[in-house]
Amino acid sequence: MDCSFLGVFNGRTDVPPLWMMRQAGRYLPEYREIRAKIGSFWSMCMTPEVAAEITLQPVRRFGFDAAIVFSDILVIPAALGVALSFDQAPKLKPISSADNLDRSKDCWPKTLAPVYEAIKLVRARLEPGTSLIGFAGGPWTLATYMTGGGANEPGPATLWAYRDPDGFRKLIDLLADCVAEHLIGQLRAGADIVQIFESAAGGLTASAFARWVTAPTAKIVTKVRAAAPQAKIIGFPRGTTLQGYELYARNTGVDAVSLDTAVPIDWAVETLGMKVVLQGNLDPLALVAGGTALAEAVEAILQATRGTRFIFNLGHGILPDTPIAHVEQLVHLVRSAK
Amino acid sequence: MDCSFLGVFNGRTDVPPLWMMRQAGRYLPEYREIRAKIGSFWSMCMTPEVAAEITLQPVRRFGFDAAIVFSDILVIPAALGVALSFDQAPKLKPISSADNLDRSKDCWPKTLAPVYEAIKLVRARLEPGTSLIGFAGGPWTLATYMTGGGANEPGPATLWAYRDPDGFRKLIDLLADCVAEHLIGQLRAGADIVQIFESAAGGLTASAFARWVTAPTAKIVTKVRAAAPQAKIIGFPRGTTLQGYELYARNTGVDAVSLDTAVPIDWAVETLGMKVVLQGNLDPLALVAGGTALAEAVEAILQATRGTRFIFNLGHGILPDTPIAHVEQLVHLVRSAK
Repeated sequence: MDCSFLGVFNGRTDVPPLWMMRQAGRYLPEYREIRAKIGSFWSMCMTPEVAAEITLQPVRRFGFDAAIVFSDILVIPAALGVALSFDQAPKLKPISSADNLDRSKDCWPKTLAPVYEAIKLVRARLEPGTSLIGFAGGPWTLATYMTGGGANEPGPATLWAYRDPDGFRKLIDLLADCVAEHLIGQLRAGADIVQIFESAAGGLTASAFARWVTAPTAKIVTKVRAAAPQAKIIGFPRGTTLQGYELYARNTGVDAVSLDTAVPIDWAVETLGMKVVLQGNLDPLALVAGGTALAEAVEAILQATRGTRFIFNLGHGILPDTPIAHVEQLVHLVRSAK
Repeated sequence: MDCSFLGVFNGRTDVPPLWMMRQAGRYLPEYREIRAKIGSFWSMCMTPEVAAEITLQPVRRFGFDAAIVFSDILVIPAALGVALSFDQAPKLKPISSADNLDRSKDCWPKTLAPVYEAIKLVRARLEPGTSLIGFAGGPWTLATYMTGGGANEPGPATLWAYRDPDGFRKLIDLLADCVAEHLIGQLRAGADIVQIFESAAGGLTASAFARWVTAPTAKIVTKVRAAAPQAKIIGFPRGTTLQGYELYARNTGVDAVSLDTAVPIDWAVETLGMKVVLQGNLDPLALVAGGTALAEAVEAILQATRGTRFIFNLGHGILPDTPIAHVEQLVHLVRSAK
């Protein structure tokens, strides 16, 4: 029996492996210390030694079963030469055509090499049983940021898709190629799992979801599999409808599907659990609340997923004001589950 | 055969009645003219003659099958004495207990009387075949605004519910009573339909949705039915999961369910169509786009809902930058449907 994180993909269902989206982040004092020293979030992502150290912090502190490389979904647009500005968070100069986006320029390797370098450093320092997760934003989510909106403001991308579906398809097709290439790069550098974040999937109409999320993801999965047959691929179509989740699990070829907070976990086990490994679903606000509320929420998920291939995780990234003690409570609850 | 809007509740399925959420609003030049004159959105709501005029504007221009009173979901917190400030939009002073909220103070009738007065004025000026819709925010959605967040920022309300479920339940119970009373007041003033907007329902966990949306809505519906047996009640649990929609349609007792943009319309017709009248679903961004995209989106909904009791509407409020010509195109497409 494979007791590492990867065992879950091979049918292991006793104690679920555990990690948290955005686990290397602002809720950790040791992260805030580095951030205060370096100043810029983007510099932290682009400096392999720093990104590697931040990646390892939560694994050291909590003994999580996986590390996820400290990086950002906007590295792909940046690598394509889209201008980035920095206010609170990095922001992209909006584009209205895919014509000038090009992977053959210097920008591409220059921007992505630090991510691969960070992964190599982490891999060398990580215990063998701990997995290393690489990631990318999905094409649709990247498109929402590249058109002047974002995951919570998909209006500009949606309008472009309505007004100029052929032009928009060019953008999505290009981004799907880029995402596949970047995931393959991360796997070659030493990641053993990759996750595709479609954080902007919620609110799409059923036909737009099929066209701009499910179909490009299937294409990405095919390319990644061809290049790295051993790799495990997790998809996160956050906020889509239950039907969207079902079609995504059935049609994209991902190994695992990450569930947002709203998905009824019983439904997911029953409908998706035979097709894919499941992940996530815990409300990050239950983790902020801690105490009884957290214990009940964790217990409900553990109960529902018993006997299912399941990765314990949040339904969305951990919130900056989460107390460390509540994360410790979570680790204890999950690890002592039977 | 009852050819008015209300006919759809009695089984009429030929041409769907048509109105739009936020149809009295900023996309209309005649609205912007009044707004420029009066200045404050809240004064417009609180001045019956003005609110009545604004309510009638879109019905006059487009011949919609229903008017919806020009008002705001925040009238209930304001009527409970919660302090309102005005920046771009009205904002509430956050509360952390339901203890000081009281319907017996002067504030209650003083704040709500103008809404009823506006409804009386509209009713007197509206053609008999045109329906008049009153509305209220649902208890959960009101709670998100009253705790310092809002429909797109439900964090503070969610945290309160985790940390102090009994205290939070007091707030929800009180708000359910308030919503029922305000809906009944609007029906007595001359509305024939009421809609409950749970704009913050998306993202709730399945158990929180059952507790803070479905159960209070059922209580509201029971009270409204007892006081106004003829009234038709539309519920809009925006953004909940498909399972959430199903349980809401089955367990609340509403006559109709309004569908957000993401709900697959075929699924809704098949799963909910026998239990309740359906409404909505058209993407407001398709209306901004117009042209072929709008024609295709409208046609897809008309096709899927043929033979179903259906009210044509958007999946969310109309956007301020929607061209008038596209609304005219929509009216033509729906009215010429066979």
